[in-house]
Amino acid sequence: MGEKPSLPPYAIARQGKRAVYDREAIHGILDVGLVAHVGFLAGEEGSIRPMVMPMAYARDGETLYIHGAASTRMIRNIDEGAPLCLTVTHVDGIVAARSSFNHSMNYRCAVVHGIARAVTDPDEQKRALALITEHLLPGRMEEVRDHLPRELAATGVLAVSIDAASAKIRNAPPAEARPEDYELQVWGGVVPVVTGLGQPLDDGRLAPGTKLPLSLAAARQKFS
Amino acid sequence: MGEKPSLPPYAIARQGKRAVYDREAIHGILDVGLVAHVGFLAGEEGSIRPMVMPMAYARDGETLYIHGAASTRMIRNIDEGAPLCLTVTHVDGIVAARSSFNHSMNYRCAVVHGIARAVTDPDEQKRALALITEHLLPGRMEEVRDHLPRELAATGVLAVSIDAASAKIRNAPPAEARPEDYELQVWGGVVPVVTGLGQPLDDGRLAPGTKLPLSLAAARQKFS
Repeated sequence: MGEKPSLPPYAIARQGKRAVYDREAIHGILDVGLVAHVGFLAGEEGSIRPMVMPMAYARDGETLYIHGAASTRMIRNIDEGAPLCLTVTHVDGIVAARSSFNHSMNYRCAVVHGIARAVTDPDEQKRALALITEHLLPGRMEEVRDHLPRELAATGVLAVSIDAASAKIRNAPPAEARPEDYELQVWGGVVPVVTGLGQPLDDGRLAPGTKLPLSLAAARQKFS
Repeated sequence: MGEKPSLPPYAIARQGKRAVYDREAIHGILDVGLVAHVGFLAGEEGSIRPMVMPMAYARDGETLYIHGAASTRMIRNIDEGAPLCLTVTHVDGIVAARSSFNHSMNYRCAVVHGIARAVTDPDEQKRALALITEHLLPGRMEEVRDHLPRELAATGVLAVSIDAASAKIRNAPPAEARPEDYELQVWGGVVPVVTGLGQPLDDGRLAPGTKLPLSLAAARQKFS
């Protein structure tokens, strides 16, 4: 799948035939991702290394929010101004070619670069946490109880402004190297990779009369 | 989902109830991933930033292999000795709690730290490329034509020794904050996230008599 040179904000690199462009396309990739892989710098001066962790997230306009226990190292140690990279990838298919070399994957990937900002305003914190919950389960905030003060105190939120973003999309059959490759009796095509939500499984501790909430149906629609 | 402090090789952090341990568990997570999110350092001295890209990969014992067009920046610019982080995540479920705060995800995640080594030995290069193809489509190398010399020349392969690895697994129902939360008429449980392979779609250019190959069935078994 490889790597793209850094691009101006909202550039899209195209591979395959049905690529789409523009800011809305990148937002579209971000808005239906389950997790972002968040890259940050770890280690000491002189021995900096990259660290990549999957995290829940949400987008609010040109800002992405991530959160974690206030006690975890990432939330504690990412300074104001630390550079972050958030990558959201949807794998759509395995591309089987007639040669090993031309095997590939169909996918949609958005890469966001930005600077971390610790969210300290209580209203922004609550809004960000609500957005992260609703990113996975649309409408969920109307169904759950309010935050407890101790819960808000235990949660660190980082905001990342989208300073630059790029997307890479491949959505095509295999591209064989030579016309004669198509004469080989070797199967070529795409095996779709399908991600969706299964039947909700309650925890066996529902209060009497509790029904399946609307947010689960909304999530199944969003992620299927 | 948050972040774990750096851990000795093959530590596993536990969240939830059915976590498993040891090196085999981490290998197990790596061996059934479709892509790794590869973190590396980009930018100039003094303005280093993290970059995270999804890449195909394969494991061979204590080594991970990744590849890309020899012309791409990542393959060209990652020096011998560059630190890399490869993270493979399986999202297994959305955990819906009775409070926003206790929403979570069920997932299995392996994080590998290692040092990049450019693969220059032709035999190791061929072996690595075969492993990457077979990681997605087991048995595929017996079905496809041989590499062309120009294809090998166009492909850069990096080896990453697993210098340290950790895993984090959550596989549990929601953990509510207070006993009285279970008295609320709010649904609590897990919405499974299911990933699998769909029906293979050929590219419409099969040579007469071409059959569905065994590798596709092996892949469906592996990734479903």
